[in-house]
Amino acid sequence: MYPKKELAQMLISACHQFDIDTVVISPGSRNAPLTIGFSNHPEIKTFSVVDERCAAFFALGIAQQTHKPVAILCTSGSALLNYYPAIAEAFYSNIPLVVISADRPKHLIDIGDGQTIRQENVFENHILFSANLVENDKFKTRNSQLIGEALQISVSQQGPVHINIPFDEPLYETVTELQKFHFPHISMSSLDNSHINYDAFSKIWNAAEKKMIVVGVNYPDTELHKLIDFYADDESVLILTETTSNLHHKKAIDSIDQLIFSLDESQFQDLKPDVLITFGGMIVSKRIKQFLRKYTPKHHWNIDPKKAVNTFFCLSEFIQIKPVDFFLKFQEVVLKKESNYQSKWLQIRDEKRVKHEQYLSEVIHSDFKVFGQVLESVPTNCQLQISNSSIIRYAQLFSVKESITVFCNRGTSGIDGSTSTAVGAAFANKNQTVFITGDVSFFYDSNGLWNKNIPANFRIILINNSGGGIFKILPGPKLTNALEYFETPHCLTAEHLCKMYEFDYQKAFSSESVTNELKDFYITSERPKILEIFTPSAENDLILTAYFKYI
Amino acid sequence: MYPKKELAQMLISACHQFDIDTVVISPGSRNAPLTIGFSNHPEIKTFSVVDERCAAFFALGIAQQTHKPVAILCTSGSALLNYYPAIAEAFYSNIPLVVISADRPKHLIDIGDGQTIRQENVFENHILFSANLVENDKFKTRNSQLIGEALQISVSQQGPVHINIPFDEPLYETVTELQKFHFPHISMSSLDNSHINYDAFSKIWNAAEKKMIVVGVNYPDTELHKLIDFYADDESVLILTETTSNLHHKKAIDSIDQLIFSLDESQFQDLKPDVLITFGGMIVSKRIKQFLRKYTPKHHWNIDPKKAVNTFFCLSEFIQIKPVDFFLKFQEVVLKKESNYQSKWLQIRDEKRVKHEQYLSEVIHSDFKVFGQVLESVPTNCQLQISNSSIIRYAQLFSVKESITVFCNRGTSGIDGSTSTAVGAAFANKNQTVFITGDVSFFYDSNGLWNKNIPANFRIILINNSGGGIFKILPGPKLTNALEYFETPHCLTAEHLCKMYEFDYQKAFSSESVTNELKDFYITSERPKILEIFTPSAENDLILTAYFKYI
Repeated sequence: MYPKKELAQMLISACHQFDIDTVVISPGSRNAPLTIGFSNHPEIKTFSVVDERCAAFFALGIAQQTHKPVAILCTSGSALLNYYPAIAEAFYSNIPLVVISADRPKHLIDIGDGQTIRQENVFENHILFSANLVENDKFKTRNSQLIGEALQISVSQQGPVHINIPFDEPLYETVTELQKFHFPHISMSSLDNSHINYDAFSKIWNAAEKKMIVVGVNYPDTELHKLIDFYADDESVLILTETTSNLHHKKAIDSIDQLIFSLDESQFQDLKPDVLITFGGMIVSKRIKQFLRKYTPKHHWNIDPKKAVNTFFCLSEFIQIKPVDFFLKFQEVVLKKESNYQSKWLQIRDEKRVKHEQYLSEVIHSDFKVFGQVLESVPTNCQLQISNSSIIRYAQLFSVKESITVFCNRGTSGIDGSTSTAVGAAFANKNQTVFITGDVSFFYDSNGLWNKNIPANFRIILINNSGGGIFKILPGPKLTNALEYFETPHCLTAEHLCKMYEFDYQKAFSSESVTNELKDFYITSERPKILEIFTPSAENDLILTAYFKYI
Repeated sequence: MYPKKELAQMLISACHQFDIDTVVISPGSRNAPLTIGFSNHPEIKTFSVVDERCAAFFALGIAQQTHKPVAILCTSGSALLNYYPAIAEAFYSNIPLVVISADRPKHLIDIGDGQTIRQENVFENHILFSANLVENDKFKTRNSQLIGEALQISVSQQGPVHINIPFDEPLYETVTELQKFHFPHISMSSLDNSHINYDAFSKIWNAAEKKMIVVGVNYPDTELHKLIDFYADDESVLILTETTSNLHHKKAIDSIDQLIFSLDESQFQDLKPDVLITFGGMIVSKRIKQFLRKYTPKHHWNIDPKKAVNTFFCLSEFIQIKPVDFFLKFQEVVLKKESNYQSKWLQIRDEKRVKHEQYLSEVIHSDFKVFGQVLESVPTNCQLQISNSSIIRYAQLFSVKESITVFCNRGTSGIDGSTSTAVGAAFANKNQTVFITGDVSFFYDSNGLWNKNIPANFRIILINNSGGGIFKILPGPKLTNALEYFETPHCLTAEHLCKMYEFDYQKAFSSESVTNELKDFYITSERPKILEIFTPSAENDLILTAYFKYI
């Protein structure tokens, strides 16, 4: 059973040819031709998620894992506006999403019909391409071109595109055959090394005493892992990896904030590199940003296949290529240099690590303590999804086991879709997914649990400190008399949501009960589980402040 | 305690001068200067709602009741994108909302900082005005002009405006005084009668045999009520009022769908008016649209102070003035005409009403039956809030008591914020608010209950038919093999949410238990209440089909 509408057939055929095999559908009538077509296509899997905000983040989580475009489909009207938070996240995180919104034909817009808004180009600020189709035979070639271009861009540029597709009534007529339409495959010019002057770069590099490599959000990449060995073996090179970098090396600084929090002026001067190389996505650590913005290196090279990010206001070279390609080629022309730059800072790292462990073993039940316990407990080879705000900041202070991959929505750093993203990622990844979340983010996206595709091995660890803990950690809000508008204290618990959405529920209030509850938490179960850990709201920030003093 | 930042002071001062006394704040750091300032202002009430989607609909509900702009304030990043569904609703429903988004200064956008997106003009498709401020002394005059213009437009044009306000750090510095800034009050040209050729209109009107007045979404208006008497007293005039029109008259057809569902060709010809006058907002009834698009009157005059809506594709005159002003003046020049047009159709109305009552008394437990019971039970002088999709369509089939005001988000007809809107309206209205909702809409906006400002007399009646009932009523979806993607069946109940958000919970499964549970449902209580009525998903549509056959 396929839609009779040719335009719907064309889009379905195109999605199939561009290897889109997953479509998340939110219910509606205007999108009926596509709902019918996609759900009947033997090589396309369809999923139903009602709340479009969650549907889009769920799709984002899948695409984050598969690196392939996932389509989301909704009806006309305000429905598609609910996609926007996830679209912005996809835009800044380089995740391919194909946003398909059904629409009314143009003559029915702004004339008083229901569920009708101005959908064309509505995501303009945060979309790679907007294809505004027209249901009319005269526009067949144009429609085909627009669809092809949109899908091509989503694949090649790894980001969100919007296809707005108007359908006149009748919407439910069907036929038995799906026509095949031909979409030319456009070979995109791939980036090679020819435009990069490695000699010039190597001269600067080889002459420099102190070189620093900072790695932001990054997918696990074994090839890159190997390459990094070479650079880590150079005593004049210091590698800083963020928790979300998915890059581990025994000679790398993996807890940036832990290292640089309490440095003094002369230490900062000493840490300041001559050459800084950055790659990967967003940097979480505010401290490394402050440091590098103040102690600017003479040379900052940002390596990215798409676009330059001048995070430290001192970018000297944007090297447009894949980081692996750069490092492989660069390796041939760089010389290693004797230096104590790396060893000195690794030693400081190790001292801080010892202190960190000491503090952790002695500290009372708190967000900080819980973090240590939870990260220790996470099974090897798991996927770790982390929510935004204070949770990802705590994660910065701990080392994560090498076999564990880490993800967080750092494109826009929103709290609005972390649960739904984690659910999508859990669904798409055969390994177990553990999602660590704060309470405000969790309750914000509670509809994320309204999803029939949550695997039974999915685990949520909810650190509930009764409000937005980040606003207790930040120095500003406490000084105002409006703390309640920042922290938004509440007495909510996940217990009732667990009953509603059929999760197993466990809770803990103390270090001992955390240990206890974590013991069998990850083993096979019939239903997904939430462990809600209540921490003392009044003490968490004091314990964190004391931690920074201590180390 | 007020923010030290002059730009924040300017905006707060402006809001106060433009009589904005309600600000709904969602938590964040970038908006700290405004959070501090608004929450400390003695004449501005501030409310905290975490989920921006709900916050915006909550504000919309307040503004719907007060007809005064309500401000919503959030931090930078994806936060403001969650406002978009409510902004679109405000745009099409003519509800004044002042959207204030804190932003980073321009040089910090797209350089890899967290919670940063392209906020300027992001709501362009559905906003009356976008003021993009700049935090810089040089732009002081420009900022002041933009703020003044935005607020003026929101008040005078009754719709959403967006003020994007960037703040550099530090964000938390305070002073003790709030400076006063002067904003010129612009006298907007008001619409008078001078441009309207009443003589010409009266000639057409007086010559016409059949005149029809159709009233869409409308605020209760006693003046208009009185005026309508005059027209209802004319035998050649037939008045059709939608449930959301808040206009009642014993000589009006108040259940349009009930009347026109089963008419035959000759009856439609007979019903077809020579002159059609429409006013008010969106028309819910699809049948009246189909009828008037097919049997087009020679003259269609749409009366609206803002813009013409050509809903029936036969608009001949857009009369830009307030409906009361038009009808008052028009009254002086029109003549009443002897005719059986009105009496004939009122008689048919009455026959259908009798049949309706017969059917209702005999029908088994179902959505339809429940609707009759619930509407009968709603106390006089209540405010009725109705969710979209099947619920508002059922409401079309029943008469609502005259003392009851009715509201529904018909701007975009979305299911995304009905609960939050109802909560806002309940908060702003001293009368009791009863909210009738379907299950999909209710669970979609479950975060709407995460709000500390829900009055204890607020009542929710949740008609739970285990999925999107509208898709069972529509003929199309059933014919496909993808019904599950339309109906999205579920087994959810509100019971757990009630525990979570501290509502009293009642439930009913049969006609008898509905009657029983409704008995004391509205009386004073310590907490708000939800009555969840489960109806048989498989039978609801058969009962509705049979109803239309019967009448």
